[in-house]
Amino acid sequence: MSGSSFGKAFHITTFGESHGPAVGVVIQGCPPGLPIDETLLQNALDKRKPGQGIASTRRKEPDIPVIVSGTFKGRTTGTPLTILISNTDAKSSAYTDIATLFRPGHGDFTYQKKYRIRDFRGGGRASARETAARVAAGAVAQLVLAPYGIQIHSFTLAIGGIRVKNFDPGAAAENALQCPDKAAAHAMENRINAIKASKDSLGGMVEITARNVPAGIGDPVFDKLDADIAKAMMGIGAVKAVEIGAGTGAAEMTGFENNDQMASSGFLSNHAGGILAGISTGEPIIVRVHVKPIPSIGREQKTLNQDGQETTISTKGRHDICAIPRINKVCESMLALVITDHLLRQKMVK
Amino acid sequence: MSGSSFGKAFHITTFGESHGPAVGVVIQGCPPGLPIDETLLQNALDKRKPGQGIASTRRKEPDIPVIVSGTFKGRTTGTPLTILISNTDAKSSAYTDIATLFRPGHGDFTYQKKYRIRDFRGGGRASARETAARVAAGAVAQLVLAPYGIQIHSFTLAIGGIRVKNFDPGAAAENALQCPDKAAAHAMENRINAIKASKDSLGGMVEITARNVPAGIGDPVFDKLDADIAKAMMGIGAVKAVEIGAGTGAAEMTGFENNDQMASSGFLSNHAGGILAGISTGEPIIVRVHVKPIPSIGREQKTLNQDGQETTISTKGRHDICAIPRINKVCESMLALVITDHLLRQKMVK
Amino acid sequence: MSGSSFGKAFHITTFGESHGPAVGVVIQGCPPGLPIDETLLQNALDKRKPGQGIASTRRKEPDIPVIVSGTFKGRTTGTPLTILISNTDAKSSAYTDIATLFRPGHGDFTYQKKYRIRDFRGGGRASARETAARVAAGAVAQLVLAPYGIQIHSFTLAIGGIRVKNFDPGAAAENALQCPDKAAAHAMENRINAIKASKDSLGGMVEITARNVPAGIGDPVFDKLDADIAKAMMGIGAVKAVEIGAGTGAAEMTGFENNDQMASSGFLSNHAGGILAGISTGEPIIVRVHVKPIPSIGREQKTLNQDGQETTISTKGRHDICAIPRINKVCESMLALVITDHLLRQKMVK
Amino acid sequence: MSGSSFGKAFHITTFGESHGPAVGVVIQGCPPGLPIDETLLQNALDKRKPGQGIASTRRKEPDIPVIVSGTFKGRTTGTPLTILISNTDAKSSAYTDIATLFRPGHGDFTYQKKYRIRDFRGGGRASARETAARVAAGAVAQLVLAPYGIQIHSFTLAIGGIRVKNFDPGAAAENALQCPDKAAAHAMENRINAIKASKDSLGGMVEITARNVPAGIGDPVFDKLDADIAKAMMGIGAVKAVEIGAGTGAAEMTGFENNDQMASSGFLSNHAGGILAGISTGEPIIVRVHVKPIPSIGREQKTLNQDGQETTISTKGRHDICAIPRINKVCESMLALVITDHLLRQKMVK
Repeated sequence: MSGSSFGKAFHITTFGESHGPAVGVVIQGCPPGLPIDETLLQNALDKRKPGQGIASTRRKEPDIPVIVSGTFKGRTTGTPLTILISNTDAKSSAYTDIATLFRPGHGDFTYQKKYRIRDFRGGGRASARETAARVAAGAVAQLVLAPYGIQIHSFTLAIGGIRVKNFDPGAAAENALQCPDKAAAHAMENRINAIKASKDSLGGMVEITARNVPAGIGDPVFDKLDADIAKAMMGIGAVKAVEIGAGTGAAEMTGFENNDQMASSGFLSNHAGGILAGISTGEPIIVRVHVKPIPSIGREQKTLNQDGQETTISTKGRHDICAIPRINKVCESMLALVITDHLLRQKMVK
Repeated sequence: MSGSSFGKAFHITTFGESHGPAVGVVIQGCPPGLPIDETLLQNALDKRKPGQGIASTRRKEPDIPVIVSGTFKGRTTGTPLTILISNTDAKSSAYTDIATLFRPGHGDFTYQKKYRIRDFRGGGRASARETAARVAAGAVAQLVLAPYGIQIHSFTLAIGGIRVKNFDPGAAAENALQCPDKAAAHAMENRINAIKASKDSLGGMVEITARNVPAGIGDPVFDKLDADIAKAMMGIGAVKAVEIGAGTGAAEMTGFENNDQMASSGFLSNHAGGILAGISTGEPIIVRVHVKPIPSIGREQKTLNQDGQETTISTKGRHDICAIPRINKVCESMLALVITDHLLRQKMVK
Repeated sequence: MSGSSFGKAFHITTFGESHGPAVGVVIQGCPPGLPIDETLLQNALDKRKPGQGIASTRRKEPDIPVIVSGTFKGRTTGTPLTILISNTDAKSSAYTDIATLFRPGHGDFTYQKKYRIRDFRGGGRASARETAARVAAGAVAQLVLAPYGIQIHSFTLAIGGIRVKNFDPGAAAENALQCPDKAAAHAMENRINAIKASKDSLGGMVEITARNVPAGIGDPVFDKLDADIAKAMMGIGAVKAVEIGAGTGAAEMTGFENNDQMASSGFLSNHAGGILAGISTGEPIIVRVHVKPIPSIGREQKTLNQDGQETTISTKGRHDICAIPRINKVCESMLALVITDHLLRQKMVK
Repeated sequence: MSGSSFGKAFHITTFGESHGPAVGVVIQGCPPGLPIDETLLQNALDKRKPGQGIASTRRKEPDIPVIVSGTFKGRTTGTPLTILISNTDAKSSAYTDIATLFRPGHGDFTYQKKYRIRDFRGGGRASARETAARVAAGAVAQLVLAPYGIQIHSFTLAIGGIRVKNFDPGAAAENALQCPDKAAAHAMENRINAIKASKDSLGGMVEITARNVPAGIGDPVFDKLDADIAKAMMGIGAVKAVEIGAGTGAAEMTGFENNDQMASSGFLSNHAGGILAGISTGEPIIVRVHVKPIPSIGREQKTLNQDGQETTISTKGRHDICAIPRINKVCESMLALVITDHLLRQKMVK
């Protein structure tokens, strides 16, 4: 079925494996007339590119996007917009020794169970490389959002159990971890270096915010705005929990504490995270995701091979120590896709 | 668009408002030949029925399901299966005084913004009453799951900040709050009574588990099993956070701690919550949801009327103190719907 | 799957069997604020009601529509709009003798093959009674079309091989067969009476036209306006061929003859039938359908029973002689649904 | 929206413009494990390739398919299968003089109305070149159909008003027009040469048959097998009418004549064209399409430019005289796609 498609009005389909010829995306429903070129896509892709920062893989992918259809003279035409990103630095040889093993924490076992055949190279379709296509699509979505003044940002809230304490948005731009707390960023960096030495990996937490989203988007009772955001985020590999607004904290408040009262000036708080009954309130949309540690680690682990025999594995290929901050851009892209989809859907209501 | 439809292979569409003639559901894709009658649906509906327990509303709805189509001689026929549940105890008069007010924490404001018209009686379409249709659909889904031996259970993990400490599954059946910890249940009950006196309300946390789900279901990269579960759960009114497996805890572990290693006996742990790369592993699927407190409270709150003027509101209509444990059955139903959808989808892969 | 749903933006789902409790429809995507009541639906349903005219069954169904959801104070709310039409004159007894036979020309054999169980009473889900739900949905669609000035009409072009020769639109209202040619109408009537005496039945041809459809709707390359119209029409039971514009005649013209040249005054002809490359031109949309004769006939025919044994059958239940003119209203409704769907979709493009 | 996607279980998305970098298709839902390579796709593409026969354009496209994703070691993996076909012989210069004109019979005017921007080169997205992607997808669909023994063939039934009289299936392979009547083929050839001299073009008629389709596929009441076939065929540019089985002829028969009676040996006729009530009967599925003449002609025609001024046009670019027989392969492909989609859907019913 259509499990690699997302969105109804702004409808994307991604394709491609980690070590196949390319990954890419087809976007349907993109409004015509928007100015677009490969540079714009390149800028977005550069933000999730591997090979940067202390937590990231050494794989060097230039990630060069090529627009294959859907534009004319630098503008979108309203027809399917296809973006192709070739795989150039795919070293399959690094994976041949794990061709018949199930790597713990990866999709090797489940893909084998589902399809009875799998491209084991670099995780194949389950590789984080597929998210390059999402980021390219997200960049196109941003073109739709821009005229509304909608802005989407993300921050690293935690890595390896170290949480942001003094939130200073300006600080995020000053460190490679995109952490809005200088001291926390420093501690995170130390934690990453220590875990690297022990051949292990770390998880963490990201907050994504969308500002200036108009009130009134979302399509209850199943395609609620928060429901679609939850799907979008939980569908990113490594995400194991999603919160909206007060999130887990809301469960511990009383109704009086949690309710966002209203005055002429607007809502007096935003525990709802910008969404009530599945529809945007006009307040900032606030999402937090909890990211599991990178499953590929140098430490030896018990596992099975495809014949069901016990064995051990230690990852030798290139891999990240922590999905953060590369995943931040992916989260932003998914949020942009959901909001764009619902903005366009709302056009039909009005 | 089709925001009130859910699922692709097992495709449901709910309809109905709190104080309209009825709520109901049309189910498409239900396999033919399954034995079904209204008693089976009634048993499911009774588990979310209001008017029971200490945390629940006093609205007395018999919630009598009527099968309108899709069955013949006590069996499903494969054609659309429609279930209608009439609204009999809908006291509209209790809501006329809030016809022009936006109740904090409710969808009144956002529905007005989206549609510029709304059925204000009892929350209209945004009412929890709509979940009766989901529970009826979930009961049909259970018919599909039964031959696989798939079992879905839920537990109350927390209410008003009081968490389960000593997990004893047997204890859950012995208290009205479905809490698997006798002492915690007692404390929760006290907390509920106290908050009732203060005209406020509480939230909490529910864990839902599905056992015997075969390995191999889920449809990456967007219709991942966990992504669809997240959407299903976050789409239930009041849910503000969703976790799978280790969930928020996964973000604080190292890769070595979090990875589920394998031996001949199977997985050595289940931090993944039964899902890897969006596909089931065969281990129990574990989901936790965080539920915000009931927004309707007797305490006075600041709000606006439809003309944008400041005013106050204290809810006088019937309402629950805590959505738990009534919401538990809704969560089970949504999980049943997602799993059924993906089980049927997997038939096409094989 | 979702085979009983139609349309993406204006998304309808029909349900119900001929002799079950009711047939009905859920409409999603209906814009809010439209004035609606049961009288409006009743007027539409009366136009396809059985028991009228010389070619029609004697089944007397009042076909009373009840709005179950989606309206408030006489206006649509934008939430799912559900219409229920109870089956009151369903004489199951008339069908028990054919419970185990496959009626030639009907879906008995194929439903049995597909589902291995079927509601044999009156054709069950395959009954033309299901089209009452389509007509109700079409009446709602007309509410969306009205402000655009879009008008949809149909004419009977042929019955039993007798074709309209002198097209006089005014004449159609003056005969029960809705035939725009007085002489042809008379000949058709004679043909119907003669065939009735021989216990046989007739087919024919209907033309449906939509005027004032704005240029620019349709969603290539698969959801072309003409493609969706073809699906809508061929999905009506008994329709065996669909033409757009010059239709079958276009195949015999040269390019010069068939092309619609343009001048300042607009298109100089309309062989395209108002659609070019799957998108409306602004000219009238012209559709013709070819309808097979009613398969239920009094004449004895060879058939099989469910055990595969040879037998014969002569229909004794109530049935029409010709699907025309009752089917005309169904065709109009389906055209209204397609145009409404694409009008709403176009809102997202602009 | 998703207008360039087709099918629900076997879900394809095509993209690309005539003179852009490439056309292509993403296929979702393809079962894993099927043997595939580019040679298989090439063989299919060669059958619709331009530059062959007397009725065809002189554009020389090698149409070389490249598999970009979804296979591993020569087998499908169940993940999205992407095929890219580069445009190598795209002479844009031939179209610059018609950049601001609306060619009669083409989508220039309607694309401009819909999107307010269009890639005018070679018809852009509306070009028949897009059908290369459909043919590639159809070749993959054939891989799914092969184990069932399902075979799909097409014949040229008419060109320029000359119809097949003596149907001899063997004869079709012996002439370039794929016409199963040697004498008719000869007459058609003369007709084509004559029309070529007069700078005009021709239409015609194609019959497509699918044998060995099992009884029981199709998804009433809207996704009927014949409804989806009608959509598939009418969605091919140039097709203006679609018939199933007896088609237009059914409208002139009586019920007794048209009904397919049954005996132990099976159906005694096949006027239904293999489909009853939208579900396959097991008999051959028979489809006929009526194809309009190629709109691009050398003869001068009246038209408008984008500013609404009257002018004339005579096509100078490369173009076919008749879409037949190149379109035949496209029709076969679309039929293969519909049948594959419904075969996979039926897996969920059983």
